Amino acid sequence: MSEQNISIDFLRRLLADEDDLQAEERLAEIHPSTLAPLLSDLRAEEIERLVDRLFVQHRAAAMLADLPPELMPKILGAVPDQRLADVLARLEVDDMLSITEQLPADRQEIVKERLPARQRRELMHAELYPAESAGRTMTTHFIALHEEMSAQEAIDEIRIASESDEYALHLYVVDKARQLLGEVPIRKLVSTPPQTPVSTLMVPDPISISSEADQEQAAQLVARYDLLALPVVDPDDRMVGIITVDDVIDVINEEATEDIYHLVGLSESDRVFTAARVSISRRLPWMLVNLFTAFTAASVVGLFESTLDQLVSLAIFLPVVAGMGGNGGIQTLTVITRSIALGEIEFSSGLRAVGKELWVGLVIGTVAGVLSGFIAYLWQGNPVLGLVLLLAMMITMTVASLLGAAVPLVLKSLGQDPALGAGVLVTFCTDALGFFSFLGIATLLLNRLL
Amino acid sequence: MSEQNISIDFLRRLLADEDDLQAEERLAEIHPSTLAPLLSDLRAEEIERLVDRLFVQHRAAAMLADLPPELMPKILGAVPDQRLADVLARLEVDDMLSITEQLPADRQEIVKERLPARQRRELMHAELYPAESAGRTMTTHFIALHEEMSAQEAIDEIRIASESDEYALHLYVVDKARQLLGEVPIRKLVSTPPQTPVSTLMVPDPISISSEADQEQAAQLVARYDLLALPVVDPDDRMVGIITVDDVIDVINEEATEDIYHLVGLSESDRVFTAARVSISRRLPWMLVNLFTAFTAASVVGLFESTLDQLVSLAIFLPVVAGMGGNGGIQTLTVITRSIALGEIEFSSGLRAVGKELWVGLVIGTVAGVLSGFIAYLWQGNPVLGLVLLLAMMITMTVASLLGAAVPLVLKSLGQDPALGAGVLVTFCTDALGFFSFLGIATLLLNRLL
Repeated sequence: MSEQNISIDFLRRLLADEDDLQAEERLAEIHPSTLAPLLSDLRAEEIERLVDRLFVQHRAAAMLADLPPELMPKILGAVPDQRLADVLARLEVDDMLSITEQLPADRQEIVKERLPARQRRELMHAELYPAESAGRTMTTHFIALHEEMSAQEAIDEIRIASESDEYALHLYVVDKARQLLGEVPIRKLVSTPPQTPVSTLMVPDPISISSEADQEQAAQLVARYDLLALPVVDPDDRMVGIITVDDVIDVINEEATEDIYHLVGLSESDRVFTAARVSISRRLPWMLVNLFTAFTAASVVGLFESTLDQLVSLAIFLPVVAGMGGNGGIQTLTVITRSIALGEIEFSSGLRAVGKELWVGLVIGTVAGVLSGFIAYLWQGNPVLGLVLLLAMMITMTVASLLGAAVPLVLKSLGQDPALGAGVLVTFCTDALGFFSFLGIATLLLNRLL
Repeated sequence: MSEQNISIDFLRRLLADEDDLQAEERLAEIHPSTLAPLLSDLRAEEIERLVDRLFVQHRAAAMLADLPPELMPKILGAVPDQRLADVLARLEVDDMLSITEQLPADRQEIVKERLPARQRRELMHAELYPAESAGRTMTTHFIALHEEMSAQEAIDEIRIASESDEYALHLYVVDKARQLLGEVPIRKLVSTPPQTPVSTLMVPDPISISSEADQEQAAQLVARYDLLALPVVDPDDRMVGIITVDDVIDVINEEATEDIYHLVGLSESDRVFTAARVSISRRLPWMLVNLFTAFTAASVVGLFESTLDQLVSLAIFLPVVAGMGGNGGIQTLTVITRSIALGEIEFSSGLRAVGKELWVGLVIGTVAGVLSGFIAYLWQGNPVLGLVLLLAMMITMTVASLLGAAVPLVLKSLGQDPALGAGVLVTFCTDALGFFSFLGIATLLLNRLL
């Protein structure tokens, strides 16, 4: 099967065909992930009918779990409370949680009360973990074996789990206190005599993570050690769940989006098909911050109005210095924040990275400075102007590199998001420094410039 | 086991302890992924000894596969040809390929000739696939079952594969022409009577991908459908390999880095600990492009030198207009390129996205324009200056949004990387337009401005 392309009209026709059994069958052939993006164009009553039909087919839950975040409010709003609770009850607890979080507070309570008792308990338990923690991302669907069990008993456990419709590929051995002892690879289980004790099959002491740890750290462990699932343990070292690799992929995509977005001051919820008014309200505060810093940097230019008055062609080169500094700073910032995100850099080697970027900035700043100075000289026929541009560009680009490397590392060591705010801070500093150094040096050399 | 922290000194001591069995054991306890980043600080002879010891422990291959790309040249350089071939022979073909690619062309040939015949053949076959294609990323280690096999025969196949040290978790059913018929979940296999035919256990017609397709598309399929492995088929629909989820995680991280990097004009190989001279040589060309566009934009300012001469305070506001336009354009560009990378947008819905961003740009541009105009009026006491700034900012920010949305979509529809070059193009256009609109309107209204 290759990937499916279903048009919205085709889906509409399927939904309109009230009693057509064939339509039901056709709908059953469409993967929930293919359906999800189409929902943006459906009317509320069409959505309700679709969810009903999918529910009968045991597939509404998977479709909801795959919804793009910006469609959530519309779709959830079209499904009645009881039906929503029925659908949620079929999801793993991490998906249940990420959907209920999207509901308005009062509706959250109503829907929770309509959940079956076990799922409500699971959900309320998961809510105790901090946002974006391993505990929130984990599922509780894993098979815990005891040391003294045989391979046959382990296989029986898999059969029981499969019958209750739960996903069971990951087997762990725990002791009486539920402390994690080892992992049993399912492929070893199948190719072994039934009486083999699982303790001889298990890989002891697997990599695990605390339920309080950040989900990004869990994703890094799964990526680094090529795991299919990562056991999660509580503060008393008891195994409480697993993070599966499909959730890790979602976390990695989410965190990559967050990193890219934060570099340019976007909020995570501002996606391509988010309603325009939501995007506007999310971007306005950042725009105001930028406006403030832009005017502050511009006021530096204001300080040198009399210099500009005497040599107005200086104004031509202001955006060149600031722009090149800003570009260099943002490049360094990107290298450093990305290496932090991928877990490639610790603070100790951070100093080495700052040193390297400082050197790179100095070299590139010198090359750019010499070139710009030469161009300015040829253009304006003024060698001193060329010298001013050379010096200003060297200073600005070197400091830009230093800031681009240091700011995210300092933010991180303060426990802050290394990308958020770093972009605007670095740009502001390089703008202000670019204007100040260029116009300042020009003022000092004004007699020779004129 | 929590993640390991090993110091370079500890590792050095382990390597120095020539005959100490205990040192060997300790080394055996360190995960290859933990070792890899430490190698940057080792001397060539230490690296060679480390690889030798790991090879005895059957773990050198895993360590090489986990090396950060910037360390490759140093580590590979320290390992003799025959030893390198021995280590490579134990890797899956996709990892083998990504390592040999790093070798100089002449050494590639030497090492390939020292590979065992089967691995050399596999490698040369994999090299026929295009770069970054599914065929290059796949492994050929999967179990192909025939329709008429029983569950017991399938289990025997798993046992054989396990004995030959190959990873075998993924079972597929193929017909006589090796065409893919279905997938057999291993958990179904274990909990079924031995005589059950695999054809009744299999999930028919699984999602698959062509070996010629882009690896990013494979990653999107695995992420969207929560797969643990994706079968790869050749142009004649024969199953030739699988892409496993751990490789997908690497692809996702790689592609996210590529996206972030391309937005700011960085090359993928320019990482945090890449040698400074390599980073410099990678960034210089981009810097030259930027310098060229910055001077071109600056020459727009030069066109209006006589206007500036009459009202030098206009120079203060130039960077404000250009900076705000640049910010808005880059935000839109980021939203659109990210949605392309995550496969959320097709060209048809691209037009809707452009329309939305245009509207967002107009609204934000108007708000920013009114505010800036008011600030400029208060600051300079000149209402006409405020009006000029308002109009210029509205125009620039609206067009910036339009370009930020349209440029990546057009690049993509031309089969180009949507991020690469888009950033510099958008910034250049907004700079030039910002200068032109602001100074142009000022020139038109010059009589009222003075």
